[in-house]
Amino acid sequence: MTNIKSYVKENKGRFIKELIELLKIPSISADPKYKNAINKTAEAVKLALEKSGCKLVEVCETPGNPIVYGEHVIDVNLPTILVYGHYDVQPADPIDLWDSPPFEPVIKKTKIHPEGAIFARGACDDKGQMYMHIKAFELMIENNTLPCNVKFMIEGEEEVGSTSLEWFVKRNQDKLSNDVILISDTGMISNEQPSITTGLRGLSYVQVEVTGPNRDVHSGLYGGAVANPINVLSKMIASLQDENNHITIPGFYDRVIEASDEERAEMSKAPFSLNAYKNALDMDEVYGEKGYTTNERNSIRPTLDVNGIWGGYIGEGAKTVIASKAFAKISMRLVPDQDPDEITEMFTKHFKKIAPKAVKVMVTPHHGGHPYVTPIDNIGYKAANKAYTESFGVQAIPQRSGGSIPIVALFEQELKSKTILMGFGLDSDAIHSPNEHFGIFNFLKGIETIPLFYRNFTELFNEKN
Amino acid sequence: MTNIKSYVKENKGRFIKELIELLKIPSISADPKYKNAINKTAEAVKLALEKSGCKLVEVCETPGNPIVYGEHVIDVNLPTILVYGHYDVQPADPIDLWDSPPFEPVIKKTKIHPEGAIFARGACDDKGQMYMHIKAFELMIENNTLPCNVKFMIEGEEEVGSTSLEWFVKRNQDKLSNDVILISDTGMISNEQPSITTGLRGLSYVQVEVTGPNRDVHSGLYGGAVANPINVLSKMIASLQDENNHITIPGFYDRVIEASDEERAEMSKAPFSLNAYKNALDMDEVYGEKGYTTNERNSIRPTLDVNGIWGGYIGEGAKTVIASKAFAKISMRLVPDQDPDEITEMFTKHFKKIAPKAVKVMVTPHHGGHPYVTPIDNIGYKAANKAYTESFGVQAIPQRSGGSIPIVALFEQELKSKTILMGFGLDSDAIHSPNEHFGIFNFLKGIETIPLFYRNFTELFNEKN
Repeated sequence: MTNIKSYVKENKGRFIKELIELLKIPSISADPKYKNAINKTAEAVKLALEKSGCKLVEVCETPGNPIVYGEHVIDVNLPTILVYGHYDVQPADPIDLWDSPPFEPVIKKTKIHPEGAIFARGACDDKGQMYMHIKAFELMIENNTLPCNVKFMIEGEEEVGSTSLEWFVKRNQDKLSNDVILISDTGMISNEQPSITTGLRGLSYVQVEVTGPNRDVHSGLYGGAVANPINVLSKMIASLQDENNHITIPGFYDRVIEASDEERAEMSKAPFSLNAYKNALDMDEVYGEKGYTTNERNSIRPTLDVNGIWGGYIGEGAKTVIASKAFAKISMRLVPDQDPDEITEMFTKHFKKIAPKAVKVMVTPHHGGHPYVTPIDNIGYKAANKAYTESFGVQAIPQRSGGSIPIVALFEQELKSKTILMGFGLDSDAIHSPNEHFGIFNFLKGIETIPLFYRNFTELFNEKN
Repeated sequence: MTNIKSYVKENKGRFIKELIELLKIPSISADPKYKNAINKTAEAVKLALEKSGCKLVEVCETPGNPIVYGEHVIDVNLPTILVYGHYDVQPADPIDLWDSPPFEPVIKKTKIHPEGAIFARGACDDKGQMYMHIKAFELMIENNTLPCNVKFMIEGEEEVGSTSLEWFVKRNQDKLSNDVILISDTGMISNEQPSITTGLRGLSYVQVEVTGPNRDVHSGLYGGAVANPINVLSKMIASLQDENNHITIPGFYDRVIEASDEERAEMSKAPFSLNAYKNALDMDEVYGEKGYTTNERNSIRPTLDVNGIWGGYIGEGAKTVIASKAFAKISMRLVPDQDPDEITEMFTKHFKKIAPKAVKVMVTPHHGGHPYVTPIDNIGYKAANKAYTESFGVQAIPQRSGGSIPIVALFEQELKSKTILMGFGLDSDAIHSPNEHFGIFNFLKGIETIPLFYRNFTELFNEKN
């Protein structure tokens, strides 16, 4: 620990400088005109890995953007950690809301980051968090403390759906074999209270179309005598949840694994002010499934939300029309072990069943994703928790995120290993927004904490095997 | 009757020619660039009334388009009929769907009109139907059979809300005093089966806004824990009607006057094929309030229809957002004696009451209109029915229209008299659409039937008084 701290202290100026150089390259994956920047960034990541001492580094071509792969095997009998990250970034729009140009990084102090934060697109998501792993690796190499084998897989399409990553993983299962996957692409509660994301929700997303009369009709002449598709759609949507906000689709909860009392107790330790939450969103009350807390409702429980609805006349003033069609986009967040394809099928069947005969219903699946969970008795979780405790002086809190990171489910399916989400970002870092930034404290704390995870994981792995 | 028939037969060529000249003037009230045509049409109507023998005719200025007023008083002890019509027309767009130019009238035979129909904008709505009254008046003057006093009020803003008419009526209550108002601006069942519109529904139209969180939030991170305004709005809309499609707003039905069994029996005589109705709209089933037929549901029963709904992401593909706000436009068709202002207030109160505390609700009233009904024991109705029976050889059927004609309620309120809606158009006449037309049979039959109404009404009026 002393070695780690002193190495970080001695080199922090260089670490920051290197990261700033990487942030200057506008590796926006959503816009083809940045293709050169994408390739340049992949080369820069390769070079950084090589300079840090990684034995084998290659830029792997894919149908899309290249994946940087690194491998440093010291002993085949030791465990292997696969580090995943991404070098691509979100578009910077709207540019005029940035206080400084998104690809000209600057360091500024903020209330939350009195030691300063680097402001640039990708500072936190994910160049900054990914670069912590390269620098932590360098530290272990330089201090001669690397306890296990390491593989790096740094992709360039995370912000556009990781299509090539899936292609790559499915074709390289042996090459990517590992004992645990380590990702820093999430956040933690605060700089005083680290947390580990242990679960991600899955997703089933559908679009529905309800048709009444075959054309728009006059609400005076036809009103009351034909099925109004908007009224009917409203009734159908309303019926999908009961008075306790339980979802009424038959079989919907069948595969839900209830979180253990221990996990719910751990989760409840996270600092949370219901008043602050309501105030931040200007709501008099929260709303959700009976029997669960707000933090449980948005993490360990499946949901059904209408993401968009439209039909009929939506312009200024009044038009007395009954629309022929009404539409809605409906998504269901899923929890382990719900299966998105099965849920989509259940939804479709149920939605058609509850439709009155006076309308026609069409359901179009959009996309889905599997839910994911890392049990807190997993040695990866234990190793991470211990690392945070040593580094921050306080135990990490397990957190289930309400969002979805489909690649984590992909890794579990294809590589048969669990992922540990050691995030060092904060909610306030404005990822995907103007003025994205990453605290220097967080960047350096990540570099300090990661080697502790390596050590703890190797020890626990060896004990177990 | 012989006199009537022979006069129409002798003059029909001229009648048609005169109407065609009137139809050539593009009196579109919705577009200010036709202001000259509006004025020219008003002058033409004035001249036509004068030529037909009307003693006093004037073009009355209003804040908007002029109103042509005519008066022919033969004896103050005789009853007075006030004829209302309008000389303005709907815009002709989309022009390219017309088979012949909208303001170059042509006569063509159709399946429904083997004797020919005049194709032009305004042919039926309302220049053709209004002109029947001028020619019927000419007929009675020429044959010396006018049995009562007549007033004409022909306006130029019916297609844009009759704003100036309201202004005019409120300022000229004495001038416009009458014993019955006669309007031909509706339709009848078929050329073999005349019908009289005895009721019009009123309207309450509101826009609602439901706000959940104060900004759009990520459906993964917040889904399940905050009120989704679209889900909540759907639930609120759904709850406004019960499983029998009765409206659940407390007090909503309190003022509804149930149609009499006699009227329902009369109404049910109208030829109606449920299969044809369903086929025309491509619906497997009709849908509506339990205990009422399709024709009752869209005429004598109040309704609640969502005319438009919107919120959240409505573009291509999927976006995992929970919207901050959801909106709907909701209209209620009203029947006698429901009051639109009272209903709007009931709706607003109820809608706010059923909102969960987790959302904020705003209700904005758009506009309303009073319902209207002419009882079938009214002497005006009886006179009209007898006229149709004599002219067509078959009794007319009373029909309640689902639509609203706000001026009729205005007349009742300001002039304290009932309106008889003697329409001679057909549903197939394409009013408000390209290729609007009016059957020559219908035009001439109107001219024949109107004098019979005058005679019958005067007789019944004298008997009663």
